[in-house]
Amino acid sequence: MDALRRPKRSAALDAIMMAVWILLSSVSGLKAEDDGMEELATEKEAEESHRQDSVNLLTFILLLTLTILTIWLFKHRRVRFLHETGLAMIYGLLVGVILRYGIPATSYHNKTPPSCSLKEGPASTLLLNVSGKFFEYTLKGEINSREIHNVEQNDMLRKVTFDPEVFFNILLPPIIFHAGYSLKKRHFFRNLGSIITYAFLGTAISCFVIGNLMYGVVKLMQVVGQLTDKFYYTDCLFFGAIISATDPVTVLAIFNELHADGDLYALLFGESVMNDAVAIVLSSSIVAYQPSGTNTHMFDASAFFKSVGVFLGIFSGSFLMGAATGVVTALVTKFTKLHCFPLLETALFFLMSWSTFLLAEACGFTGVVAVLFCGITQAHYTYNNLSEESTKRTKQLFEVLHFLAENFIFSYMGLALFTFQNHIFSPIFILGAFIAIFIGRALNIYPLSFLLNLGRRHKIKGNFQHMMMFAGLRGAMAFALAIRDTATYARQMMFTTTLLIVFFTVWVFGGGTTPMLSWLHIRVDVDPDQDQQPCGDSFQVLQGDGSQAEGQSKTKQESAWLFRLWYTFDHNYLKPILTHSGPPLTSTLPSYCGPLASCLTSPRAYENHEQLRDPDTDLIRNDADLTFTFGDTSITANGASGGGADAAGGSGWSANGKRSGSTSEEALERELDSREQELLSRGTRLVFPIEDHV
Amino acid sequence: MDALRRPKRSAALDAIMMAVWILLSSVSGLKAEDDGMEELATEKEAEESHRQDSVNLLTFILLLTLTILTIWLFKHRRVRFLHETGLAMIYGLLVGVILRYGIPATSYHNKTPPSCSLKEGPASTLLLNVSGKFFEYTLKGEINSREIHNVEQNDMLRKVTFDPEVFFNILLPPIIFHAGYSLKKRHFFRNLGSIITYAFLGTAISCFVIGNLMYGVVKLMQVVGQLTDKFYYTDCLFFGAIISATDPVTVLAIFNELHADGDLYALLFGESVMNDAVAIVLSSSIVAYQPSGTNTHMFDASAFFKSVGVFLGIFSGSFLMGAATGVVTALVTKFTKLHCFPLLETALFFLMSWSTFLLAEACGFTGVVAVLFCGITQAHYTYNNLSEESTKRTKQLFEVLHFLAENFIFSYMGLALFTFQNHIFSPIFILGAFIAIFIGRALNIYPLSFLLNLGRRHKIKGNFQHMMMFAGLRGAMAFALAIRDTATYARQMMFTTTLLIVFFTVWVFGGGTTPMLSWLHIRVDVDPDQDQQPCGDSFQVLQGDGSQAEGQSKTKQESAWLFRLWYTFDHNYLKPILTHSGPPLTSTLPSYCGPLASCLTSPRAYENHEQLRDPDTDLIRNDADLTFTFGDTSITANGASGGGADAAGGSGWSANGKRSGSTSEEALERELDSREQELLSRGTRLVFPIEDHV
Repeated sequence: MDALRRPKRSAALDAIMMAVWILLSSVSGLKAEDDGMEELATEKEAEESHRQDSVNLLTFILLLTLTILTIWLFKHRRVRFLHETGLAMIYGLLVGVILRYGIPATSYHNKTPPSCSLKEGPASTLLLNVSGKFFEYTLKGEINSREIHNVEQNDMLRKVTFDPEVFFNILLPPIIFHAGYSLKKRHFFRNLGSIITYAFLGTAISCFVIGNLMYGVVKLMQVVGQLTDKFYYTDCLFFGAIISATDPVTVLAIFNELHADGDLYALLFGESVMNDAVAIVLSSSIVAYQPSGTNTHMFDASAFFKSVGVFLGIFSGSFLMGAATGVVTALVTKFTKLHCFPLLETALFFLMSWSTFLLAEACGFTGVVAVLFCGITQAHYTYNNLSEESTKRTKQLFEVLHFLAENFIFSYMGLALFTFQNHIFSPIFILGAFIAIFIGRALNIYPLSFLLNLGRRHKIKGNFQHMMMFAGLRGAMAFALAIRDTATYARQMMFTTTLLIVFFTVWVFGGGTTPMLSWLHIRVDVDPDQDQQPCGDSFQVLQGDGSQAEGQSKTKQESAWLFRLWYTFDHNYLKPILTHSGPPLTSTLPSYCGPLASCLTSPRAYENHEQLRDPDTDLIRNDADLTFTFGDTSITANGASGGGADAAGGSGWSANGKRSGSTSEEALERELDSREQELLSRGTRLVFPIEDHV
Repeated sequence: MDALRRPKRSAALDAIMMAVWILLSSVSGLKAEDDGMEELATEKEAEESHRQDSVNLLTFILLLTLTILTIWLFKHRRVRFLHETGLAMIYGLLVGVILRYGIPATSYHNKTPPSCSLKEGPASTLLLNVSGKFFEYTLKGEINSREIHNVEQNDMLRKVTFDPEVFFNILLPPIIFHAGYSLKKRHFFRNLGSIITYAFLGTAISCFVIGNLMYGVVKLMQVVGQLTDKFYYTDCLFFGAIISATDPVTVLAIFNELHADGDLYALLFGESVMNDAVAIVLSSSIVAYQPSGTNTHMFDASAFFKSVGVFLGIFSGSFLMGAATGVVTALVTKFTKLHCFPLLETALFFLMSWSTFLLAEACGFTGVVAVLFCGITQAHYTYNNLSEESTKRTKQLFEVLHFLAENFIFSYMGLALFTFQNHIFSPIFILGAFIAIFIGRALNIYPLSFLLNLGRRHKIKGNFQHMMMFAGLRGAMAFALAIRDTATYARQMMFTTTLLIVFFTVWVFGGGTTPMLSWLHIRVDVDPDQDQQPCGDSFQVLQGDGSQAEGQSKTKQESAWLFRLWYTFDHNYLKPILTHSGPPLTSTLPSYCGPLASCLTSPRAYENHEQLRDPDTDLIRNDADLTFTFGDTSITANGASGGGADAAGGSGWSANGKRSGSTSEEALERELDSREQELLSRGTRLVFPIEDHV
């Protein structure tokens, strides 16, 4: 009778994690009665299944452990042709092959499940009456008639198959949050305009180019007779959207290791992070794009605009949601002395960041996108308020979560190639897709770079463009979007193709990064210190001498008025309100806001301000250009005190002894540099740029 | 048609976390067909439910956030009468009251679910045929006939109800692992014998005393006519088992804050950690105790012995499982240079520790118990091999997880008082239980302390015994065990009573800790430094002068032969094999094992050894007693080199200039001290005890 304990436990285990996430709606009162319950066939099955589940998860943990050990070996021996993600996929493939061909298809579940009929539509809960005893069942979903027979086939393979929403709701959020939180702000903000252009316009171009090309391919397949089921235009566009999400995790890891150019890094990283968000929202907008009659699936202007509206609504809503949670966290950490208790602080930070995801999902926005912007806001504001220990703790916590989630996804991808049961390999479609993504990427990078170069003082050079073209790997996001819905013929074909594209790009392009960098003559081993003290270099650029110094690539495009406006606003109002740094609000807000301003200003801000003002007073007079900067931006701000604060940032550089005259863009950029440094040493802003914070 | 995306997502979300844990068995092929699927009533319901779920979880996060902020406020103002766990319960209570009485019982789920009949027994999967379309349902469990009508009542309350297995499989493991991992080894090992006695014998006594007393209460209730349903003797014993799990988290937090006596801390902490494990296994053994006919429920010798066998089997199996994973992790971290990459190291550590839980569950043992011993092993061996950064990272990671899990459980307890729908408040039972746990605790602590004091050189004094009596709070483990099964009348009554006992003990005993400490004249503000350099004190104890020095409580009981044997084995073989410290194996293993020994010995061990041997050579001659010690233990070891290694430990003390003659027990104890210090400063063992590592 030991088994008595099992059935409930296992039926319950079926629902464990679900509860953490969603607070089960229908468990409490509905337990199996242990007492007097007869031994049912399900008991043994449930117990077996509970053990089987543990074994399966153990398999995955073993996989990850193996991956970690091999990664170590590779890092130890400085092997660069295969990144950890590529490695995780290979291990996944191996286990997939073993599961598929190595294990005989034994199934304890050896009959088609019983079925019963109802006239009314399916409800979420169903009661089953077995000779007076009632059993509760919950709805899993509709089942395809051909899949009913699959149920009995190879149970083991079905066992290792995840619910696709796991990727979206469990594995992606930490990856995306970590991306936002670990953004190298200086390079990112300097290239913000270009990044946004690539991410929004570029992804849209890529999506439509790929979508239309694939529609051509699909038409061709119809002519040749290779298409056995429906494949609509919207399906093609959907494919374009999911395959436009680039994921240069491999490339960036190598960039990091080789210390490749910081701006190229920022462009690639920023683009890939943002275009993930764009691709998610784009794909769901395309799903929402349903022209009046559900069967037409062709172009319809009103539906198109509705789709664009949905896109903008979801994107901006998610953005606001994420930013709002970040701001709330910043305020809480600023106005409490929580930093005396790092554990509490870390826990609060974690909970608040997680709540963004739930908040966005509760409001019908996209949790993953909200989490990205929450991460950026947290890094920009909250990070400044955290105690030194918490800054480390939060970074390390999300680093571990991100690492585990990423390697899990990639090893699962390897596994999926052999264990997913509805693959549709269509050579024409696959070949077409490879060509289409190549063309789509090219039409994204080259024309946009050309346009951006018209405006950028510092151009994105040819070799950078080639590298960006080359670095368009597809990874976790494309996979997660593709596996989310594999119900129809078209989606199954897309899923198979996406999987192959991910494999190919991660292995081939990922492995080819190092040779490609040297082939394109892109400088590596850029000393981060040197990269942060580019006084001579960028001065030369300004003098028009942009030969070798251009490798340093100080792009000035983003110092446009919009950016400047935002920057001043951020520096004068947001930073002082949300963090302990920046000039005191009492000096930036109009005088009639006095009481409010002094209430919101952190005592530390005065200290910083006083501390900095003293040694700067004479420097301000010398550095005429800096005061000019603040003449320029004082449209919205109190020029005098703003100038004082900025001179503080500038003074570090003046002390550097290399500059005397500089332009307003340079002043802004220096501010960005020093903002970065503030993270490392709060309390004083008279810091020399020392090292990039990762 | 935006809703099209929702139903699948939400039905899927229902299953998200489950998949992370158990690798879903039945999802892959069974998706709802989006295309052409008609709008069903379930879609809207599912979408609504998805949002509702997010809102519910947000409520919990808000609760935790509030708790964190209030904890901060309390810590900030040094409020000690209410601990964070007590606070979490109060917030939970408040939210419970609001949910129960504040929200009108609106339910979108406003009809009894449809039911259908089958003749065969229930299978885990059921297909529902609705006019040609098939839907898959999974079994949740049997449902009580009176609960069918509950389904329609107050849907909101059912929403916030968790699957009880969540507590066992998600929330308890990090708490228990953290307990094992953060064990203060020195005090723990010094009191190991007493701790094991209290944990095993004490819990068994407590369980049987409470069980029998409660059986008396139940008989009384039958006489008075207060009992409306069956309540067996095994139920009473089960209650005794679950309520015997003490959880002095509140008390220990205050001890930590006030720096109360280290040995009392170790006794309380060790007892509560170990008795959790004992209580789990004990309760499942009692469930397994089913005398031949299922209806007798009275004493049966064969069933009793079977039960004892089950207890021993599960306990030792879980112990071995946990220790084995710890050992494997130690070996992996020792023989790879993983410590160059703290991220990889931390991830590996996390995965290996998690796999213990799965491994134990897969083998039919108890995951939670395995995780405890895994934590202890990891702290004892693996911790020594980790890089400095990883030691911090792993501690902090598990600290955060433990903090979140614990506060979640306690706030859920508060919530459960009002939201759990099957409470059975029986005043007689509750009063009886309060008296029974008091008597049970007394019959555990006082007689065992008396017996232990017969053997202990340093007695457990009266005030310590009273404090242990007082510190018998009930907490997370009792709650988790009680909520695990609330199907029968007896179990529901037990659950209600357990909840009330937890509330009462946490608030009253937890809040009374500080007054109680001063009332019992237990020394607080024991300087950890002083506590670790108790040279004078323990010397006096040895000289028979135990007046004031006894507060320091150097208990020598554990230096018995069994402990000494284990200690020597651990120091000479296990430590050198599993970590970088300890004497080289080449000197402790017999010479014919030479090649194997040199293969297993870490190069660092030689360094440490050489470094230490040189200054010690003359000390060994002076410290005659130490060589005697190794004459004593050299039964299993090579005396000469073992002595050399130990002299190294002793030399630190000799350098301290306070000792010349000492007994073998003291030498061992000093080794324990220096083992502790090794954690902090590997590479040299010539350390003065500086601070306790938490």
